[in-house]
Amino acid sequence: MPRFRITIAYDGTDYVGWQRQAAGVSIQGLLEDALAEIEEGPVTVTGAGRTDAGVHALGQVAAFSLTRPIATGALVRALNVRLPDAVRALAAQEAPADFHPQYAARSKTYRYHIWNGDVVSPFEYRYVWHVPGALDLAAMGAAARMIEGRHDFAAFQSVGRDPAHTERTVFSSLVQRSEDRDEIAYEITGDGFLRHMVRAIVGSLVEIGRGGRPPEWIREVIASRDRSLAGRTAPSAGLCLVRVEY
Amino acid sequence: MPRFRITIAYDGTDYVGWQRQAAGVSIQGLLEDALAEIEEGPVTVTGAGRTDAGVHALGQVAAFSLTRPIATGALVRALNVRLPDAVRALAAQEAPADFHPQYAARSKTYRYHIWNGDVVSPFEYRYVWHVPGALDLAAMGAAARMIEGRHDFAAFQSVGRDPAHTERTVFSSLVQRSEDRDEIAYEITGDGFLRHMVRAIVGSLVEIGRGGRPPEWIREVIASRDRSLAGRTAPSAGLCLVRVEY
Repeated sequence: MPRFRITIAYDGTDYVGWQRQAAGVSIQGLLEDALAEIEEGPVTVTGAGRTDAGVHALGQVAAFSLTRPIATGALVRALNVRLPDAVRALAAQEAPADFHPQYAARSKTYRYHIWNGDVVSPFEYRYVWHVPGALDLAAMGAAARMIEGRHDFAAFQSVGRDPAHTERTVFSSLVQRSEDRDEIAYEITGDGFLRHMVRAIVGSLVEIGRGGRPPEWIREVIASRDRSLAGRTAPSAGLCLVRVEY
Repeated sequence: MPRFRITIAYDGTDYVGWQRQAAGVSIQGLLEDALAEIEEGPVTVTGAGRTDAGVHALGQVAAFSLTRPIATGALVRALNVRLPDAVRALAAQEAPADFHPQYAARSKTYRYHIWNGDVVSPFEYRYVWHVPGALDLAAMGAAARMIEGRHDFAAFQSVGRDPAHTERTVFSSLVQRSEDRDEIAYEITGDGFLRHMVRAIVGSLVEIGRGGRPPEWIREVIASRDRSLAGRTAPSAGLCLVRVEY
């Protein structure tokens, strides 16, 4: 059974997230349905990251096995004619028989978009969190750098989750203002992320940006391992899985 | 009755166009409904350009009169809380009592986006025409420049329209390839545009880009005043009213 690795991009607005659910349309479900037509039989697709409902991807990675060989270019085209315009296969390559896109990943990069102007562009509202008013970018940037390194991120995990194995390494954590529009981008690269971790970090950075807390507060939150101390979970629309590195 | 001029942006994908219609949601209808709530009575809105169904705007201009004075900042906010996210009031200013956004306009600028890659980004498909394959940008650019000047553009008007008064002046007409993605933008500024004129010009430029015609063919089409000679009308999704100059 040849195994394939594909890179996909999607606008997550209208979907229940990566993972197949009892109700609603998922990215995994769309891919499995398209591949079932190509394979003429059931196919299981595994993703590198389980993006939540409303979260987008520029470079999600997925893997699956087919019974027959197929040229990778033909596979990309066969997928795209079956997928909605909001979900696109960008590339495909053959992969080792045991390739698992999540376990094999060295790191993942997420980007979060904050719209800091008074009026959100009608072309951007699906992809941003609207935070009007003054934001102290220097304070947010300083706090973002304190997240880099190996830490126990339990305080940024959604409540009710398994509290074990909550250590992760963040390789880079940066805040940047867009040069040509009222947008702030937060980009984080790490060896793995807990559920809602990026969104809880963004909620905390915005609290710091608004002056409610000093940058050093982020260190206290990490040390506490207490979810109730961190900022609110930022909305899913602003989040995008940019790439997965192997 | 104080008169106001507003600048608005919209994603036209889900609307029947600028003009109020018997069925479907129009931009004019959305604005008139929002203003009727603010005014507590009927308000008529006039636009600078009647964009078709699916056409977008970054800087459409509209005007209307209200019985009571209102601060322009408050007017923008009152509109935006009543409009859908896909339609935004960007700015408002008071205008002379006889201000008409179409007749007063010196020029309008439209931009048309062509996606020239194999796979259209899931974040762009609402705003582009997908034209895969080789396109001769130099030939398209040369033909675009031949459109500049005062001409009778009857050949680029939708069939069945009034054939009189079809002279317009095009101040600039430019083709540009995007530096960071598989996109080609065509931008045209003129003192006025016939119905479907920009889209028929784009259809003709693509025919030239594909090598079906030499650039000079555009001169023959203009001289013919015959709609059947020009290229197909490019899809509405790629078109955007960028700004109106006064």
